[in-house]
Amino acid sequence: MSYDNEESSPGFIAALVEARQGAAEGGVPIGACLVAQDGKILGRGHNMRIQKGSATLHAEISALENAGRLPGIAYKNATMYTTLSPCDMCTGACIMYGVKRVVIGENKTFVGGEQYLHARNREVVVLQNSECQDLMTRFIKEHPEEWNEDIGKEGSVESP
Amino acid sequence: MSYDNEESSPGFIAALVEARQGAAEGGVPIGACLVAQDGKILGRGHNMRIQKGSATLHAEISALENAGRLPGIAYKNATMYTTLSPCDMCTGACIMYGVKRVVIGENKTFVGGEQYLHARNREVVVLQNSECQDLMTRFIKEHPEEWNEDIGKEGSVESP
Repeated sequence: MSYDNEESSPGFIAALVEARQGAAEGGVPIGACLVAQDGKILGRGHNMRIQKGSATLHAEISALENAGRLPGIAYKNATMYTTLSPCDMCTGACIMYGVKRVVIGENKTFVGGEQYLHARNREVVVLQNSECQDLMTRFIKEHPEEWNEDIGKEGSVESP
Repeated sequence: MSYDNEESSPGFIAALVEARQGAAEGGVPIGACLVAQDGKILGRGHNMRIQKGSATLHAEISALENAGRLPGIAYKNATMYTTLSPCDMCTGACIMYGVKRVVIGENKTFVGGEQYLHARNREVVVLQNSECQDLMTRFIKEHPEEWNEDIGKEGSVESP
């Protein structure tokens, strides 16, 4: 299921609400939501690096984890909504589970594995949503050391 | 730090012990261990799909998660030991964290993102260890439906 205006889709709105929740918790404000082919939300979540001291619970990983253990068929033609361009790990997770479309809130503050998603025949939609961008811009400005500890461009962790 | 015989290295042995533990728990028998440049074990773990109903705690993700929240510099020139060729998600996780070398127990039962690791300038070593292979061969034979639910070749989840 796709929408003429993805910014109004339930999946994107859920991802954005997750990002806001992350911000309210003092965390990295990135949210994601995994939506099945029939439009059902399978799982949603937000980055938990700060809240749980987690190195792997990025927003997309949280959404996949919160969806639980599902048969492979559940992911067929699924869409991953995420408020920020996905890092290499989250890109790989989407590819591994056969997610067909990745709808990205914004890629002005960080560009992840979009090129590789294209190379692996996934549809990529970038919305350049102003709230997603504002959430990230504020976080990076106020917490540069925490952003650079994760996938921030100036950190010692490699960015593509 | 690298070893003339990686099969005797503390990182590989820890990964293999994790895989055995996974098998003993009735889980997918894949283990991993993340080792820093100076040889210190940062984290180790095994696949928890069956034990925790987890869609994301593959062995390498478990090892990264169990290492906790670290500064990016901690991963510099690190080695990820894993008993099986890493899937796309775990490949991406290694790339995202700047892991330099990936030492793989075996790639006879499954081939993951090795080509992409090479493309992103990571060193890949394949040991073709017989115990790693035996653990996987037995699991796939005895639990084909559970293997195909995860990254199994015949499942509906895409394999590279």
